[in-house]
Amino acid sequence: MITALKFTLLLLALAFAQGLHYNYIDELDKEAGTVRAVQASQYVSLWPLPQKVKILDLSFKLTSFNIVDAKESSAGSSCSLLQDAYRRYYEYMFGIAKRQGPRKSRLTGPSELTELQVWITSPDSECDGYPSVTSDESYELSVDLPYAVLKAPKVWGALHGLETFSQLVYEDQYGAKSINSTAISDFPRFAHRGILLDSSRHFLPLKVILANLETMAMNKFNVFHWHIVDDQSFPYLSRTFPQLSQQGAYHPYTHVYTPADVKMVIEFGRLRGIRVVPEFDTPGHTQSWGKGQKDLLTPCYSGSKPSGSFGPVNPILNTTYDFMSQFFKEISTVFPDAYVHLGGDEVDFTCWKSNPDIQKFMDQQGYGQDYKKLESFYIQKLLDIVTTTHKGYMIWQEVFDNGVKLKPDTVVHVWIGGGANEEMGKVTAAGYTTILSAPWYLDYISYAQDWQKYYKVEPLDFDGTEEQKKLVIGGEACLWGEYVDATNLTPRLWPRASAVAERLWSAKDVTDINDAFNRLSVHRCRMVARGIPAEPLFSSYCPREYKGI
Amino acid sequence: MITALKFTLLLLALAFAQGLHYNYIDELDKEAGTVRAVQASQYVSLWPLPQKVKILDLSFKLTSFNIVDAKESSAGSSCSLLQDAYRRYYEYMFGIAKRQGPRKSRLTGPSELTELQVWITSPDSECDGYPSVTSDESYELSVDLPYAVLKAPKVWGALHGLETFSQLVYEDQYGAKSINSTAISDFPRFAHRGILLDSSRHFLPLKVILANLETMAMNKFNVFHWHIVDDQSFPYLSRTFPQLSQQGAYHPYTHVYTPADVKMVIEFGRLRGIRVVPEFDTPGHTQSWGKGQKDLLTPCYSGSKPSGSFGPVNPILNTTYDFMSQFFKEISTVFPDAYVHLGGDEVDFTCWKSNPDIQKFMDQQGYGQDYKKLESFYIQKLLDIVTTTHKGYMIWQEVFDNGVKLKPDTVVHVWIGGGANEEMGKVTAAGYTTILSAPWYLDYISYAQDWQKYYKVEPLDFDGTEEQKKLVIGGEACLWGEYVDATNLTPRLWPRASAVAERLWSAKDVTDINDAFNRLSVHRCRMVARGIPAEPLFSSYCPREYKGI
Repeated sequence: MITALKFTLLLLALAFAQGLHYNYIDELDKEAGTVRAVQASQYVSLWPLPQKVKILDLSFKLTSFNIVDAKESSAGSSCSLLQDAYRRYYEYMFGIAKRQGPRKSRLTGPSELTELQVWITSPDSECDGYPSVTSDESYELSVDLPYAVLKAPKVWGALHGLETFSQLVYEDQYGAKSINSTAISDFPRFAHRGILLDSSRHFLPLKVILANLETMAMNKFNVFHWHIVDDQSFPYLSRTFPQLSQQGAYHPYTHVYTPADVKMVIEFGRLRGIRVVPEFDTPGHTQSWGKGQKDLLTPCYSGSKPSGSFGPVNPILNTTYDFMSQFFKEISTVFPDAYVHLGGDEVDFTCWKSNPDIQKFMDQQGYGQDYKKLESFYIQKLLDIVTTTHKGYMIWQEVFDNGVKLKPDTVVHVWIGGGANEEMGKVTAAGYTTILSAPWYLDYISYAQDWQKYYKVEPLDFDGTEEQKKLVIGGEACLWGEYVDATNLTPRLWPRASAVAERLWSAKDVTDINDAFNRLSVHRCRMVARGIPAEPLFSSYCPREYKGI
Repeated sequence: MITALKFTLLLLALAFAQGLHYNYIDELDKEAGTVRAVQASQYVSLWPLPQKVKILDLSFKLTSFNIVDAKESSAGSSCSLLQDAYRRYYEYMFGIAKRQGPRKSRLTGPSELTELQVWITSPDSECDGYPSVTSDESYELSVDLPYAVLKAPKVWGALHGLETFSQLVYEDQYGAKSINSTAISDFPRFAHRGILLDSSRHFLPLKVILANLETMAMNKFNVFHWHIVDDQSFPYLSRTFPQLSQQGAYHPYTHVYTPADVKMVIEFGRLRGIRVVPEFDTPGHTQSWGKGQKDLLTPCYSGSKPSGSFGPVNPILNTTYDFMSQFFKEISTVFPDAYVHLGGDEVDFTCWKSNPDIQKFMDQQGYGQDYKKLESFYIQKLLDIVTTTHKGYMIWQEVFDNGVKLKPDTVVHVWIGGGANEEMGKVTAAGYTTILSAPWYLDYISYAQDWQKYYKVEPLDFDGTEEQKKLVIGGEACLWGEYVDATNLTPRLWPRASAVAERLWSAKDVTDINDAFNRLSVHRCRMVARGIPAEPLFSSYCPREYKGI
């Protein structure tokens, strides 16, 4: 319901002049000898930028404001996902303290906006469902009198629209809130917009994971790729194989994710439109698995004797596949998402080569010395197992590179830096869906504004047909955990990952780096005001600085 | 009182085997296909390593433990600095909750240590004084029955000894605390061990500054170099010139340091043996000064007209020196330290060159086009002004390089990367005291373990006589603020600055990087357990992870 007011689009200079929204000081201009302040964006603080935005120079005061279900909405007060979201965004916009005491009814003035009506237009709101790669995330937002209206086919779009609405609200220096007459029509450019966190190199307390899911929602990310286990530790508490975490976690009680923890992560994500895709990476990256599951890993040999150390998963034993069948059966029930990430990266052949039983098997199979064939043998059997659980799978690019036969709906995850464009071309030419992470390894840090580098990436910038380009469903920012734990994860991830968020959500031609800097500066202060320690882009201040240390 | 028990020094393997102290997993060893755990250091978790340490394999349980003044001590219960420190370290070692309810007297067993006696041996404990560059920071610690004794000439050494004592305490997995029989004799290698924080590029809330002073004490740093103002903002609230922060701070109320704030920082530091050396950098880096002090900065010209922008402090006006006299008179009373840092770095001549009045002055003085002479003219007058306030001064190396006449007790601060060794040689050959920061710019970040780079620096590794080497009184780790604020400062500083702490405190031959890794890993988890978000060195876990996000 976009109103057709004929106001021209205007810089919201007044709102900024009060100095409450952003305050960036640019590098000392040596030539002029002055300090330059950054300009206000015509899109204010919207991040990621919606597909279509029209902001008018007509402002409304927000007084006695409320978010309510539209009468026509297919999701009413019984939709706790939406009711939770209303509370959450009300608190973001007005703070906890403001809602105390009974609401007084009073007359409102001509320029006061008192209501945002949320209208789910599709008969099935999907309120109690899980988001998926095919979810409709679109929404339309009209801010006008007598009330603002947020229309979305499904709850997923409504969640995004609420975030957008909250980003349109600004305050004067005494805290009074206003919003301008606005019309927005929005949908994501890519369906898969993910963040990878790694809870194996360092255990991430639940609180940290939830805070980052919260921040993902503020950036319209919709996939939490949970790299939950790896060589270093196995914090996933399996009901079927409790010894895996009992022996393989850093600590069996304080450094594990219980079934209740996992449930909470999934539900917390769902309420924010975020899928939780767990990764159980095999056959490499599995040292921690070996501690609690006898004979799962390949014994390495030193000469003719076992050396006492172990290599990748042992691909020649039936017990391995029995284990994997049971294990992934559990995973398929614990994690509701339609996909599971099966890893398959960086398999080291040294140990396999040293083991005489493996050598014998290689001979029997006629693999010669081609250990990639052995790797493919394992992965093929694993994929067949996972297929029986009715899950789709994602895999790192090596599995594709090695010629493993994949289901048509497999998602190939491109991560190797250098040649990523060629790889995207190859994967899509073979007809597979793909996501990109190679340019977005956020664990690699460097001095100054590296967010710009992430921002400038164009995922479809590879040689290929239009059909191929359509197979690119998105990407993920990866924050591997070797140097990251609860102490530094959140400021290291945000707002650097926000750059990836806009690249994956907004239109292809949204590439103005200066405008991005202006909007992202305000967006980062908004995250800080919401309690998230998102680090600064450059010399600046936020009206409300971070309260922690 | 070092006891002469003839136990041999032994690895405290038992204390570690319980897995509570540190738990580092080294990089996957591709050859062996295994994950290696890091070894325990014979010096356990001591950081920085004391000058002489003897740890025996005799352990005492800490039960009904207390820290008390020794009867012979020159500082008794009236020394609140020590009483505060006792409480602080008691809490670090045993937590807040443990001290509730009345103390029950009971018989202690033969291997129970119940008391640490703190004995200030010099008649003047300096309890109510301020630390200085000549403070005696030495101490001797004997942990033995019937009680442990910490002897120090002054309170400053006692503070360090308490930290060391707390580092010797370890716990079993059920929380019971023990300490081994130990004899330590300790003193710092360098007298000036500093951290520079920058509250101009980003305002640092008081809480952040105090938390980092606290952490400095855990690392035996003793100088907080407060780079309090710069181009970007002037948060120092001056009683004499309140317009400086009123106009020059990011925000005149929420982003300033009031006189009470400054007092608190100074006292918080004093109670931890930390000097607070403020830096008021001129004549460059002063854009923010110009907003609240008319005519202080040089008007830049564009052709024959003022361009509206301003350059460095105007060195040709008498009003400039009147202002500086009053300003530094205030500073000399507000900050008790014997030194003030006067900056003097990176003066850009562009604006001076453009200004016809400056050109005229240059002609009159016969400076020709040598603007370094004008810079020196200014600095010389400033130094004379500061000298009348009875303060010593520190200056960045350019002031020395430009041949300004300096008082003999001037401290020259070497910061320019590349040629720092040559500069150290030149400064000391000229007979000036110097401190080193060039290799320790911690705002420059990079992937992986860059603490090792900082650790490997040897400050006296320049060509010069023994006399010259003696003029090097220490160094400072600098965390400039362009990319750092409350959200990310603390994890970015620690434990990277800890590497600098050990280099400046411990003996020259303490250079074993593996041993350092082992000790620092535990030290970092100790900082985390004390509530400081010190980031990890590598894949690992801490028994008590950080509770924030």
